Amino acid sequence: MGSTFGRLFRVSTFGESHGAAVGAVVDGCPAQLPLAVEDIQPELDRRRPGQSRIVTQRKEADQVAILSGVSDGLTLGTPIALVVYNADSRSKDYGEMQTKFRPSHADYAYQAKYGVREWRGGGRASARETVGRVAAGAIARKLLATVGVEILAWVERVYDVRADVDIDAVSRDDVEANIARCPDPAAADTMIERIDAARKAGDSLGGVVRAVARNPPVGLGDPVFDKLEADLARAMMSLPAAKGFESGSGFAGVDLKGSEHNDEFFRDDDGRVRTRTNRSGGIQGGISNGETIDIRVAFKPTATILRPQNTVDEQGQETTLSPRGRHDPCVLPRAVPIVEAMLALTLADHWLRQRAIANA
Amino acid sequence: MGSTFGRLFRVSTFGESHGAAVGAVVDGCPAQLPLAVEDIQPELDRRRPGQSRIVTQRKEADQVAILSGVSDGLTLGTPIALVVYNADSRSKDYGEMQTKFRPSHADYAYQAKYGVREWRGGGRASARETVGRVAAGAIARKLLATVGVEILAWVERVYDVRADVDIDAVSRDDVEANIARCPDPAAADTMIERIDAARKAGDSLGGVVRAVARNPPVGLGDPVFDKLEADLARAMMSLPAAKGFESGSGFAGVDLKGSEHNDEFFRDDDGRVRTRTNRSGGIQGGISNGETIDIRVAFKPTATILRPQNTVDEQGQETTLSPRGRHDPCVLPRAVPIVEAMLALTLADHWLRQRAIANA
Amino acid sequence: MGSTFGRLFRVSTFGESHGAAVGAVVDGCPAQLPLAVEDIQPELDRRRPGQSRIVTQRKEADQVAILSGVSDGLTLGTPIALVVYNADSRSKDYGEMQTKFRPSHADYAYQAKYGVREWRGGGRASARETVGRVAAGAIARKLLATVGVEILAWVERVYDVRADVDIDAVSRDDVEANIARCPDPAAADTMIERIDAARKAGDSLGGVVRAVARNPPVGLGDPVFDKLEADLARAMMSLPAAKGFESGSGFAGVDLKGSEHNDEFFRDDDGRVRTRTNRSGGIQGGISNGETIDIRVAFKPTATILRPQNTVDEQGQETTLSPRGRHDPCVLPRAVPIVEAMLALTLADHWLRQRAIANA
Amino acid sequence: MGSTFGRLFRVSTFGESHGAAVGAVVDGCPAQLPLAVEDIQPELDRRRPGQSRIVTQRKEADQVAILSGVSDGLTLGTPIALVVYNADSRSKDYGEMQTKFRPSHADYAYQAKYGVREWRGGGRASARETVGRVAAGAIARKLLATVGVEILAWVERVYDVRADVDIDAVSRDDVEANIARCPDPAAADTMIERIDAARKAGDSLGGVVRAVARNPPVGLGDPVFDKLEADLARAMMSLPAAKGFESGSGFAGVDLKGSEHNDEFFRDDDGRVRTRTNRSGGIQGGISNGETIDIRVAFKPTATILRPQNTVDEQGQETTLSPRGRHDPCVLPRAVPIVEAMLALTLADHWLRQRAIANA
Repeated sequence: MGSTFGRLFRVSTFGESHGAAVGAVVDGCPAQLPLAVEDIQPELDRRRPGQSRIVTQRKEADQVAILSGVSDGLTLGTPIALVVYNADSRSKDYGEMQTKFRPSHADYAYQAKYGVREWRGGGRASARETVGRVAAGAIARKLLATVGVEILAWVERVYDVRADVDIDAVSRDDVEANIARCPDPAAADTMIERIDAARKAGDSLGGVVRAVARNPPVGLGDPVFDKLEADLARAMMSLPAAKGFESGSGFAGVDLKGSEHNDEFFRDDDGRVRTRTNRSGGIQGGISNGETIDIRVAFKPTATILRPQNTVDEQGQETTLSPRGRHDPCVLPRAVPIVEAMLALTLADHWLRQRAIANA
Repeated sequence: MGSTFGRLFRVSTFGESHGAAVGAVVDGCPAQLPLAVEDIQPELDRRRPGQSRIVTQRKEADQVAILSGVSDGLTLGTPIALVVYNADSRSKDYGEMQTKFRPSHADYAYQAKYGVREWRGGGRASARETVGRVAAGAIARKLLATVGVEILAWVERVYDVRADVDIDAVSRDDVEANIARCPDPAAADTMIERIDAARKAGDSLGGVVRAVARNPPVGLGDPVFDKLEADLARAMMSLPAAKGFESGSGFAGVDLKGSEHNDEFFRDDDGRVRTRTNRSGGIQGGISNGETIDIRVAFKPTATILRPQNTVDEQGQETTLSPRGRHDPCVLPRAVPIVEAMLALTLADHWLRQRAIANA
Repeated sequence: MGSTFGRLFRVSTFGESHGAAVGAVVDGCPAQLPLAVEDIQPELDRRRPGQSRIVTQRKEADQVAILSGVSDGLTLGTPIALVVYNADSRSKDYGEMQTKFRPSHADYAYQAKYGVREWRGGGRASARETVGRVAAGAIARKLLATVGVEILAWVERVYDVRADVDIDAVSRDDVEANIARCPDPAAADTMIERIDAARKAGDSLGGVVRAVARNPPVGLGDPVFDKLEADLARAMMSLPAAKGFESGSGFAGVDLKGSEHNDEFFRDDDGRVRTRTNRSGGIQGGISNGETIDIRVAFKPTATILRPQNTVDEQGQETTLSPRGRHDPCVLPRAVPIVEAMLALTLADHWLRQRAIANA
Repeated sequence: MGSTFGRLFRVSTFGESHGAAVGAVVDGCPAQLPLAVEDIQPELDRRRPGQSRIVTQRKEADQVAILSGVSDGLTLGTPIALVVYNADSRSKDYGEMQTKFRPSHADYAYQAKYGVREWRGGGRASARETVGRVAAGAIARKLLATVGVEILAWVERVYDVRADVDIDAVSRDDVEANIARCPDPAAADTMIERIDAARKAGDSLGGVVRAVARNPPVGLGDPVFDKLEADLARAMMSLPAAKGFESGSGFAGVDLKGSEHNDEFFRDDDGRVRTRTNRSGGIQGGISNGETIDIRVAFKPTATILRPQNTVDEQGQETTLSPRGRHDPCVLPRAVPIVEAMLALTLADHWLRQRAIANA
C-alpha cells in the first residue's frame, strides 16, 4: 500500500535501494504526448548521486528505460513503465545496519511494522526511491508545459544560511549555476562552505526548498479534502526527511493581521482578475486562482552521520552504531528536482481532474 | 470530487453554509463499536459558533442526528450518516457577497472553477463544512480509544502570543479551562485580549494549533506516498485557513545539525524500544514508532474582516467591499476540535490499514 | 467499506431498511446542471413499493429531499446529499428474523462478517438500499442526456416467459405501459399471471432485465481492469439478487464461430464508422464504439417466500422459519429503474473520465 | 487509467504486446510471505503461447523477473515489480493492421478514444497483457494458500461441447491432464477436435470457464457496491473476450422458483453452519458464507480469424482485411490460469479488507 500517487495522472513507484531496480509506472497520461528517454534522463541526472562534491559519492548512472506506453515517439494513453537498474550496491558499508537501528532512520519503524526489513541501504525507505518520482515527474512536467505551466524549485536555506531570491525573476539557469542549487550566488557560496564543513565533520545539515509553478491554470484543486494545498502538502511531506510544509505566507502569515494579510483583487491590463499580493500562494479555498503557486518544504538534517551514536539492536539491546562510507551531508541540492517532480505530479493530476468537469 | 477522506475508515462530507444541512457519511467503521449521539454532540459543541465572546456570534445549535449505521447502540459496519440541519442563515448580511469577490476568500476561485458559486456564507468553502469532519472525527476518536490512543490539541500561538506547554502533561481539562483553548493560563489571557482587540477593530488574527496523539500504535503509515506525516499534512492543510504544517521538529529542525537532531534509541524499563528525544514527532520513515505523534498547523488570520477592502466583482470591475455582520476574529479556539478530528480520522484509517497486513 | 461507486462521478449510499433514512451523496457531478427534486422523484416512484399489485405492498412514499450541492436550481459542483426518510417499518413482521437466518438471504453472512446485524427488514442488505442508487442515477441520467445519451431497461424474462422486443424501437412508454414493465404486451400479460400465481402460492420468481444506452459517446472505458463492460458488470452484480451478467452476445455468443460472431465495420451515410451487427454490445476492447450498449442482468427468484423452510438460528441450532407479511414475489418490475440507474451511473463516471484525457 | 485492480492487495499491470516488456506491480502484499520466481513461473508457463498445438504458435519464453519487494526469499511489504520482456515480435504479420480496423477487435475503439494506437499485435488490448495478471495472481494464490484457500478453474464448454464435472472432486491434475484443460476426458477429446477443425478452417471458437474457490474464509465482500460477486464480475469481465459472468446458479437460476432455489441452512457434524445446496455460489448478500465460491465466465470466439472480412480503414474507407499468421483458434485452454489469477487477486484483496475490520 501507499506507493501510488494521484487520481487521474497516477504514478506508482517501486524498488529498494539495493534491489534489482527502482522505477515507476505512470497510468493516466493522455495519449499523443511526444515522449522519449531524452525527456526524462536530464531530470534523473539532476537527482543523481555523485554529481558534485557536496552530495553522496555513491556512483549510479541511473539510466532510465521506457518499457511500455510509448510507441513511435508518442504516448499511447496506456501505462508508461519506467525502470532504472541499480548498479553500485556496496552492501558491505552497511554491515552494522543489518542488526542495529540507525537513529532517526526508518529501520526500527519498518521492522516494527513489517516484522522484516531490507536493511541494505535503507531498502524502500532510501531516498533512492525518489528515482521513480523524478522520472514520472518529468512526464508530468512535459504535459503541463503544453499549457504553459513552468515549474521551478531552488534551495532557499541551508542550516543558518538564507538566500534572497526574486521569485518572479529567478530562472532554471540561475538555479543550476552552482552546485548548491541556490540562485543567490553569495548565499550559495556560504551554503557550500557549510556543507563542506559538515561533511568533513561527519555531520549533516538540513534546509528549505522553495518551489513555484508559474502560469498555472485557474481552478485546480477540489474542495474539501483534496484542496490543492492539501495535496501539495501530502506530496511534499511524503518525501524522505521532510518535516514541514508551507503554502504562501505559511507560518509567517501568523505575524500579520487579516487587514495586512488579505490579497486584494484588481483587474490587470489584460482584463484578468489578479491579486496585488500573493500571500495566498496562488491558492484560495484550496483552488488555484491563477497567481504563482508558491510553497516551501523543510528538510531535516540527514539522519546518516559518520559519528558514533547510541541505539538499540534487533534484539532490543542497547549498543553503539558507527557508520562508515558515503552519505549526503545535506540533501537540499538533490531535493530540488525531487520537489519539482512532486509539484508537477500534483498539478498534472489536478489539471486532468479539472478537465473532466470544466464546461461539462 | 474531493469530499472523501481516508481509504478504509472513510468520511465523506457534504453541505453548504446556508443550504439545508451539513453532514458526513462514515464508511468503514468496524462493527460493534458502541455509539450514540452523546458521543458526537460534545465535540460539535466545542466547534459550535457562539460558544464564547471571542468567536463568531452566529447562532447554531448544531444538533446531530445519526441516520444509519447504528442499531441498538452498536455500529453495524455499514455507513454511518450524520446530519446537522442549518438553522441560522442570516443571508442578508451577505448581500454584497453575491456579486463581489471577498479578498483571500474562495469566492473568485470557486467562480472560476465552477462557473457558479453559492455566495451565501461562502457555501462549501465556509468553515461550517467542518461540522461533518468533527462529527466523523468523534467516531474515529472513540474507535482509537479502544486501543488506548489519546488525542489532544490546543492553541499554541495567537498572533504574537506564544504559549509554553508541557506536551506530556497537558490535559483536556487544561485546554478547556479557558475560552482561548490555550493551556498556558497567562498566554491564554493575553490571547483573549488580542482577539478582543482585533474584534473591536474589525480585524482578525491567525495562530498555530499543536496536536498530539499519545500512545499511538507502532507501525502506522505506509511507504512511500502514504507516509503518516504525509497524510496528516494533507488532513491538516485541507482545513480552511491552514497555511503551514509541521511534524516533530518542523522548520525549526533546520536550526540543528544531524548530530543534534537525531533521536537516539534506548530500551526502557519495560523493555520497549524508545527514543530519548522526539524530534521525529513519533514518525520515522513515514511510520509511527510509538512515541507521541506531535504536529503543528498554522492558520492565517481570518479573511473576513469588517473593514472596506478593494476588490473586483463578477463582471471583473474594480469595486470596494464593506462587510458587515458577524465573523470569527480568530479561528484558533474553534480550530482545536477540528484539528483533533482530522488527527483522529487519519490515525483511525491507518490503524485499520495496518490491521489488514499485520501478522497476515 | 464498499458503499461508494465511481471514480469521478461518485455515489455513496447509506441507510438500513428500518433505520431513520436511506440516501446517497453524489460527489463529482459537474456544476451548472439544472437539478430539482422533480428530476429525481419520478425515478423513485418507479422503484417504490406498493406501486402495483405484483410488488411488495409495503407503503413508502419515498419522498426525496436534496440537502446540499444545489442552489438556485443549479448544481454547484459540490456533493449532492439526497435523503429519503423511512416511514413504514412494521418490525413485528420480522420477529422470527431476529434469531433465525433466512435461507439465501444475507443474514448469516452479515452475522459472520460483522458479529452483529440489523435483523429488521434485512438492514443494509435490503433492496431498500437501492433508493440511494436510483436517486443518484437520476442525476447521472440527466447529465448524460445533455450529450444525447438515452438509457432504457425493461423486463425481458420472468421465469419461463420470454419477451420479444425490438431493442432499437422500444420506448419508455412501451415499458411503462404495463405493471410488468415488459414492452411485449402478450408476454407481459403472461408474466403478470405467473407473478400473481407465485404470490398466491407464497412463492417467488426470477427473471432477466435487459438494458440499453443509445447514442453513447465513443471512447468510454479504460483498459484493462476498468473496461466499460467490467464496470457495468460490477454495477449490475452489486444489485441485490443479481446472479448473472451479459454484454452483447453474452453466453449465447459461444454458440457462434468467430466468422459468425465478428461485427464487420462499414461507413454509414454520415461518414461515421459503424458495425453491421452488434454482438459486441457496443463495447470493443472494453471501450464503447458508439453502437448501442446492450446488457442483460439475471435476477434469482426472491429469497423471501411465505413458506416454512429449514434453517439454523444464531446459536447454530437447526430450526424452521415461517415468514409472514409482505414480500415481492418477483423483483423484476421494480428492478428496471434500478438497472437504469446503475447503467447511468457507470456511463456518467466514464464520460467524465474520458473528458479528462480527450484532446489533452 | 484503469490498469490497477484491488484496494489493499493492488496489482497494476503495464505493457503492450510488441513493446519492450509486459509486467505488473503488486502493492499491498503482506510482508514475510516466502516468494521466489519459482512460485510465479509455472503459472506463466500455463498461460504461455506455444504450449500445445491448439493454441497460438507465437513463441515466448515469458521468463519473469522480480525487480523489487522481495529480499532473502521473503516479501518486504513493499511493491513487488514483475517484468517479462517481450521476445518474439513478428510485426510483419500485422502489416495490414496498421491501417485497417480488425472486426470485433479493439482497434477502432482505441483509435477513437486515444487518437493513436499501438497497432502491432493489438498493443495494450492484446491478451498478452494478461501476463502481468497471471504473475500477480500467483502471489495472491500463495497468500491465500496460507489460510487454506484452494483455487481451481477449468474449461466447462467449447462451442457446442459441454463437460460434465464434479466440482467438489475435480483436481488440478484432472485439469492439466489434457491440452484442453477440461477435466471431463471425453468432452476434452471432442473439444480438441473442434478446436483443431476451427484452426484448419481459419475460424475460431468460444467457450465457458468455470472456477471455484474451495474453503474460502467467511465474511469476504463488502456491501453494497463491493459485493464479492460484483468484484468477481468486474475481475472476469475485464478479461479480453469475456462476454458473460455467472455466480452460483446464474442465468439458470431463473428456471427455478424461490422455493426451489433457496439454499437451506443446516448444522454440519463439526457444528459449522452450512447450506445443503449452493445455488448462491458461496456468496449471500455479496458476502462469502464459507461454501465453495462458484463462478462461470463466457468467452466469445476469438476475433482474429484467418479469413477475409469487410471493414474500414483509418481514413474511414471501406476495405477488406485478410489476416495471416498465428492466432489462437480458441482462448479457452489458456484462459484457465488467467481466470484463476483474477479469482485469486479478488479474494486476496477482500481477505485483507476483512482482516482490517474483523474483531477490531
